[in-house]
Amino acid sequence: MTSQPQPQPSLEEIYTTIKDLLPTSSHPSLSNSVIPSLLQSIQAVASTLRTSQTISQAGTANAFGDDQLNVDVQAENAIRDALAACPAVVTASSEEDPKEVSTSSPSATAPATNEQYTVAFDPLDGSSIIAPNWTVGSIIGIWTGSSALHQLPSKSQIASILGIYGPRTTAIVAWRLPDGSSSACFELGLSSNSVEIVRPSVRFAPPPFKTRYFAPANLRAAAEDARYSALVSAYISEKYTLRYSGGLVPDVVHALVKGHGVYVSPVTEASKAKLRRLYELAPLALIVECAGGRAVDPATGREVLATEVGDCDERGGLVCGTGEEVGRVCEAFGI
Amino acid sequence: MTSQPQPQPSLEEIYTTIKDLLPTSSHPSLSNSVIPSLLQSIQAVASTLRTSQTISQAGTANAFGDDQLNVDVQAENAIRDALAACPAVVTASSEEDPKEVSTSSPSATAPATNEQYTVAFDPLDGSSIIAPNWTVGSIIGIWTGSSALHQLPSKSQIASILGIYGPRTTAIVAWRLPDGSSSACFELGLSSNSVEIVRPSVRFAPPPFKTRYFAPANLRAAAEDARYSALVSAYISEKYTLRYSGGLVPDVVHALVKGHGVYVSPVTEASKAKLRRLYELAPLALIVECAGGRAVDPATGREVLATEVGDCDERGGLVCGTGEEVGRVCEAFGI
Repeated sequence: MTSQPQPQPSLEEIYTTIKDLLPTSSHPSLSNSVIPSLLQSIQAVASTLRTSQTISQAGTANAFGDDQLNVDVQAENAIRDALAACPAVVTASSEEDPKEVSTSSPSATAPATNEQYTVAFDPLDGSSIIAPNWTVGSIIGIWTGSSALHQLPSKSQIASILGIYGPRTTAIVAWRLPDGSSSACFELGLSSNSVEIVRPSVRFAPPPFKTRYFAPANLRAAAEDARYSALVSAYISEKYTLRYSGGLVPDVVHALVKGHGVYVSPVTEASKAKLRRLYELAPLALIVECAGGRAVDPATGREVLATEVGDCDERGGLVCGTGEEVGRVCEAFGI
Repeated sequence: MTSQPQPQPSLEEIYTTIKDLLPTSSHPSLSNSVIPSLLQSIQAVASTLRTSQTISQAGTANAFGDDQLNVDVQAENAIRDALAACPAVVTASSEEDPKEVSTSSPSATAPATNEQYTVAFDPLDGSSIIAPNWTVGSIIGIWTGSSALHQLPSKSQIASILGIYGPRTTAIVAWRLPDGSSSACFELGLSSNSVEIVRPSVRFAPPPFKTRYFAPANLRAAAEDARYSALVSAYISEKYTLRYSGGLVPDVVHALVKGHGVYVSPVTEASKAKLRRLYELAPLALIVECAGGRAVDPATGREVLATEVGDCDERGGLVCGTGEEVGRVCEAFGI
């Protein structure tokens, strides 16, 4: 694969298209710099993936190692490059390089800004399904201040972005002001030379539901946990529709786009927590909450965003989706 | 969406790249015209999907109808255009237009050929997962002679192609000579200006398997069929890994690329057969067999390719994957 510059829509075009959906007046740098730059990087990652045929040629984890790492690193670099162009971003960390470091910005030409943000991201989630050419994604959380650690996520994580790499390239963006006074969640379509609003408001639908969807992650845990096993059996006997790709981004996005769904990834003694709180759980939880749903920790039943992240590598489980379905899972798990 | 011509690799380039993998000497028109033209049309469908953001904006079947149909029809047209350029293709039918009709070819400039083929295809499979931007696909079967009906598929279906539209555009091609004397199954990567061989031989792996995958389709049937319910419970308790997108193409391709997997779509009294034998089951079965696996009808336990297709709209269930896993399902179902 070459590392030539990829075609992208301009920052100006992205900002012009979505500015009415952003907190432009209260957070100008977030709106006109950070979010547009990150969306541009998502298009760059998509372009890289489209031409990375041979990188994904091995099917197994063993034969896959080094090549797979290359795609991850290229996605990481595209997002880091975007951050370096944002003077308001002062700290960054990622699943590929999980420690918070100051980011240097090209300050000579940068506009002055009073805003300061920390970005925490998973550049390419879903590595196990890259080889069969299934949809994968990026997960990005944007926090106010110079660190995402030891902050209450519900207050400090102001925005998050999912990049979805499938037949099209789409992105879901959510933001919520620290005082909770306003929020939004919307979907964009990206291509090499344009950006468009696909859905100005992404919201879970109200009941009744014609079709109910379930995504049972970490299903091996059902072999050890009678509560999880019984829950899955109940979904089957009640004729819920199964959709489970094994990619966290497409699985959660499926529920958001369909307006219904529940994603269940419990943790047991033998099936340890795998999802990173900082790079996966917190950004997804903000998206889900801004779409009117709930995201809770299956170990405690608490909202994901109600617990500070103490360390970049902290991990947990996840139950998210419509409030009604998440409540049912909490009841089934006795949490 | 515009209907401008989409960038494609040239027929010459496609043929040159893959000719050593095709039955070029015994079936020159199949090798240098029909298969390359169809691969070109898969790249055209991919390009159309990449720019069809607004077409997929509704999440539900109800709100989705007309727009969704547009994408289906554009995929249909791209493949029909490819067939019209192939003098050796004399008959075609598709899931969008399920009756066999003669195809007119631009005979004035066409080279003489003694070969005659019928093409039966599903232009865009997986409509329910287009809105959330999950991987979808095309399914194409190529039959010798002027009809695919009332022919033994194992003899008359000489080749098939899957187009996979995900982060990349890939295709899996399989062919087997009517006398069974030789066959191949390989994977290609397509982009707007190139084609490359990703995997010259797609084969299920031999045991033992580090990870075993299962894709339980039509899972609602498990609510009515104790055998299916018990089988799914067994997969869970034996810690098979679940991967089920609900798209027939990505689900089967996952098993092919990973080298292991079993796809189970049984039929019950209340959950009727949905998969078209001509447009879905037969082409997939050829791919699976050429990769060293098995594809059987869960109603009878017979190989899918052992039964003639009597009508364009005939439907059935499917069990496919490695021989060992398919055998286990047959035992569980008592077939």
